[in-house]
Amino acid sequence: MASAVGKTLWVIAEGYIPAHSQASTPQLMSHETMCMLNAGDAPAQVSVMVYFADGDPVGPYRLTVPPRRTRHICFNDLVDPQPIPPDTEFASVIESDVPIVVQHTRLDSRQAALALMSTVAFAQS
Amino acid sequence: MASAVGKTLWVIAEGYIPAHSQASTPQLMSHETMCMLNAGDAPAQVSVMVYFADGDPVGPYRLTVPPRRTRHICFNDLVDPQPIPPDTEFASVIESDVPIVVQHTRLDSRQAALALMSTVAFAQS
Amino acid sequence: MASAVGKTLWVIAEGYIPAHSQASTPQLMSHETMCMLNAGDAPAQVSVMVYFADGDPVGPYRLTVPPRRTRHICFNDLVDPQPIPPDTEFASVIESDVPIVVQHTRLDSRQAALALMSTVAFAQS
Amino acid sequence: MASAVGKTLWVIAEGYIPAHSQASTPQLMSHETMCMLNAGDAPAQVSVMVYFADGDPVGPYRLTVPPRRTRHICFNDLVDPQPIPPDTEFASVIESDVPIVVQHTRLDSRQAALALMSTVAFAQS
Repeated sequence: MASAVGKTLWVIAEGYIPAHSQASTPQLMSHETMCMLNAGDAPAQVSVMVYFADGDPVGPYRLTVPPRRTRHICFNDLVDPQPIPPDTEFASVIESDVPIVVQHTRLDSRQAALALMSTVAFAQS
Repeated sequence: MASAVGKTLWVIAEGYIPAHSQASTPQLMSHETMCMLNAGDAPAQVSVMVYFADGDPVGPYRLTVPPRRTRHICFNDLVDPQPIPPDTEFASVIESDVPIVVQHTRLDSRQAALALMSTVAFAQS
Repeated sequence: MASAVGKTLWVIAEGYIPAHSQASTPQLMSHETMCMLNAGDAPAQVSVMVYFADGDPVGPYRLTVPPRRTRHICFNDLVDPQPIPPDTEFASVIESDVPIVVQHTRLDSRQAALALMSTVAFAQS
Repeated sequence: MASAVGKTLWVIAEGYIPAHSQASTPQLMSHETMCMLNAGDAPAQVSVMVYFADGDPVGPYRLTVPPRRTRHICFNDLVDPQPIPPDTEFASVIESDVPIVVQHTRLDSRQAALALMSTVAFAQS
């Protein structure tokens, strides 16, 4: 079912890792996530370039989404080639060798009351 | 009016059912919803496949959206072939035999102050 | 500038008017909004059909967006042919005789801490 | 990588600058943002027209996004030709001479508990 769903080039123009959290559990820590679905039968080799307001882009960050799997990748957890600094505006371009779908979600718990946002990323057509 | 509005293949790359709620009323329980509109004159036979980070996809979940009706389907309520576990990342692919429109909304009331997010799902074109 | 921006057929598959608010000011009342931009030089004659889970669609609600103007229409304020009941799931199809852009936003203040969501509506292409 | 990502004409049909904030830090002040990514090798010359419910559009506001950079532009900070009034509904059309990607985000901290929303802007195709 749906073996070639999605696109190979995605953009998240908004990115921001809150510098702190007021979280009672790990699930409620502030996080910035790219949710990827590979509904196909081959592994997706994904490269992420991260762009900043000041200074050159960093990357590629490389990761794999296995066939028929989803991965919710937290920008907070990217470390190679280098971590993304908190409290800094960024954007990202996501390329995959096979079609995937990318959705962007942030949970912000800088205050005791969390806030959420989500949008399907921009797909180049 | 608008008898063939929408697409037949939709993707929600983000999915997560919060494990608990602090809700004073049923409407404020944490929920993860796919809102579907069938503006056409024939029933929409819809199949939903749910993908996980670990383990094979589950489904299809089958449901019908009557003609000229909307259905706001809560992932929490899907039981056949099996319930979706809470506190687990998932994604979904939604196929319909006639054009529909799908929007994804989450209400998170794990804290006393609820959070909301919504996005039109990705439509394969 | 940009005289034919947008599309003529839009869908908001998610709709819900919270039944109550905890709001200290009118701006913080719960509301469900379709934000329309008519960047062109002619008035946009807009028809909105509202779909429900149970019962036939209602409408058309007719409204005009003047040239080079935006209108943020609150579903709460639609009265002709009939008001939309609160605490009821609905969806809407928006047709215009000239291209417009439609974005969907909800402010939910059923709890003391408001929640927000927004997404560009689905545009039929 | 990805030197011509995006589109040259974008629309944010929803715009609103909350009139006040309850913010403990500058990052938590209410703001309305257009996040732009220029992943290409040439500077992006961007013109923003702002539309209102009453009165003629204002602009263009002119800004530049350097090559391989992102800029998160706060509507609150636009001053030339004139500031955008708070507590007023608006919409915006964003044109660039090279492809960019635009995402719309609002942080609302009128109440102690902040709310967030985000969506990829509408891209004219």
